[in-house]
Amino acid sequence: MPVGSGEQARVELAKQLEQAGHQSPSGSHGIYGRGADFEAVIDGLAKALVALEKPDETVQRMFFPPLEPRAAYLKTDYLASFPQLTGAVDTFTGNDKDHKALLKVYEEGGEWADTLVPSGLMMVPATCHNVYPRYAGELPEPVRVEARSWCFRHEPEVDPMRMVCFRIYEQVYIGTADGAQEHRDVWMNNYVALFKDLGLGVTTDVANDPFFGRAGRMLAVGQKSEALKFEVLTDIYDDKQTAIASGNAHRTHFGENFGITLPDGSLAHSSCAGMGMERATIALLVRHGMDVSAWPADVKDRLGL
Amino acid sequence: MPVGSGEQARVELAKQLEQAGHQSPSGSHGIYGRGADFEAVIDGLAKALVALEKPDETVQRMFFPPLEPRAAYLKTDYLASFPQLTGAVDTFTGNDKDHKALLKVYEEGGEWADTLVPSGLMMVPATCHNVYPRYAGELPEPVRVEARSWCFRHEPEVDPMRMVCFRIYEQVYIGTADGAQEHRDVWMNNYVALFKDLGLGVTTDVANDPFFGRAGRMLAVGQKSEALKFEVLTDIYDDKQTAIASGNAHRTHFGENFGITLPDGSLAHSSCAGMGMERATIALLVRHGMDVSAWPADVKDRLGL
Repeated sequence: MPVGSGEQARVELAKQLEQAGHQSPSGSHGIYGRGADFEAVIDGLAKALVALEKPDETVQRMFFPPLEPRAAYLKTDYLASFPQLTGAVDTFTGNDKDHKALLKVYEEGGEWADTLVPSGLMMVPATCHNVYPRYAGELPEPVRVEARSWCFRHEPEVDPMRMVCFRIYEQVYIGTADGAQEHRDVWMNNYVALFKDLGLGVTTDVANDPFFGRAGRMLAVGQKSEALKFEVLTDIYDDKQTAIASGNAHRTHFGENFGITLPDGSLAHSSCAGMGMERATIALLVRHGMDVSAWPADVKDRLGL
Repeated sequence: MPVGSGEQARVELAKQLEQAGHQSPSGSHGIYGRGADFEAVIDGLAKALVALEKPDETVQRMFFPPLEPRAAYLKTDYLASFPQLTGAVDTFTGNDKDHKALLKVYEEGGEWADTLVPSGLMMVPATCHNVYPRYAGELPEPVRVEARSWCFRHEPEVDPMRMVCFRIYEQVYIGTADGAQEHRDVWMNNYVALFKDLGLGVTTDVANDPFFGRAGRMLAVGQKSEALKFEVLTDIYDDKQTAIASGNAHRTHFGENFGITLPDGSLAHSSCAGMGMERATIALLVRHGMDVSAWPADVKDRLGL
């Protein structure tokens, strides 16, 4: 059941998660340690997702680290569209003398991080961004990929449903226009059916990404009016529904930016569906209670718990 | 069997891992995608580690994201000891006008990342760093933690055994001096026994961390002469053994820096043992072949494969 409204409800949910051992604060909003039961639910959801794949379709499985090279990051246009969410990794490449200078800045209370230099690595903002560079070139036939990665979006908030570091497990398709559309719709239906089987009340709605700034607002309107993005929403709080999964049709955006073509020479279309693994897990904890061992038997069965 | 010497051997191993679907290059050394078989071995090793725990000891399980707050990072003295490995995350906090300026720098080929600002988040360099802040204060009794995290060390190299992003699964102890020493030694023995059961030839040796600079060389000598750090080494290449696990006694280093005390008011000691999950997996692939399904039955059994 929903835990109430406003900031108080967010704080209350965080407290419930902490007391039950599902969430351990780090001192930074959106960066949380997790307990064993929490991880078991994520593993169970991952297995349930794999079980939804059609047996006659070949699915590539890919597991990614939390960082990607800058070259791949820039090709996604993320710097133009979502700069406010970006994470760029700096490091230290100096000598002994430079190190002494860095430590002096630190000891004097200055911004020592300003003396670091770009490493050329970026935090991965979306799991599927890892996939497209791997298919640059001509694609003999459409591909389906199950991809897992840690993602980063810099939006620190009290709300435990809003994380800075979190996992998105995605089903990605690269191929034809019709195939991309169908893939997204099939997986949105898969998600809805799975969540309903797990006892979660969910709805779907057209949505838009949080494009940055004034130009971004127009992009968001366009995305919404073309129904490119859908979200699966559930009731965590009384005042606002929360997305726990989404599906995106990208048209030829990634095909063009990563140079992925079909045998007829046309640009590949792509689409993805992704589940926010921590969000889905918290939604289940809110629905069935903080004690996973006391969840309904059919829910535990479905998740292999 | 070892794959040879020098850079050629490293390139050859990377190629073998790629051809077998275990490793997918990203364009940056040390950042790799993984395949399903590779991940299954990591999961199997993780389960084998849990099975080694003594049944009469309570073990807390903690799972962490790849980032930690700067305050925790600074308390570990990492900035002074290992600046060359550090990853600090920058982000964009400006307005529309700042964003236009950023994009202009980018379009003109300038260093756009220099216009970003510190987010206050750092890449986690070692899994156990996540643990100590969670026990600040008085410890009623010693604690044992099994902790899992992605770690970051900025040392990009061709060698697939040298990663920038990788997972260390650790057994951490915080408590008495004797307990800390025993914990490290018990787990070093556990690792050696497990690797031998899995058919890997391993040795152990005193080791030191790669402390930075001239002052760092003295710290390394001290660490080695006091036998605080041990490594479990195996033959991947002909020219040099490779560490796949290590054990560290920290004395009161973390107890002091994180303010962890025992009931008698003294500073807590700590120790940890950690396995490089990707390194251990690659060592097994080198030993038993790239086709996991063809590994010896007893090895597969032990890993639940």
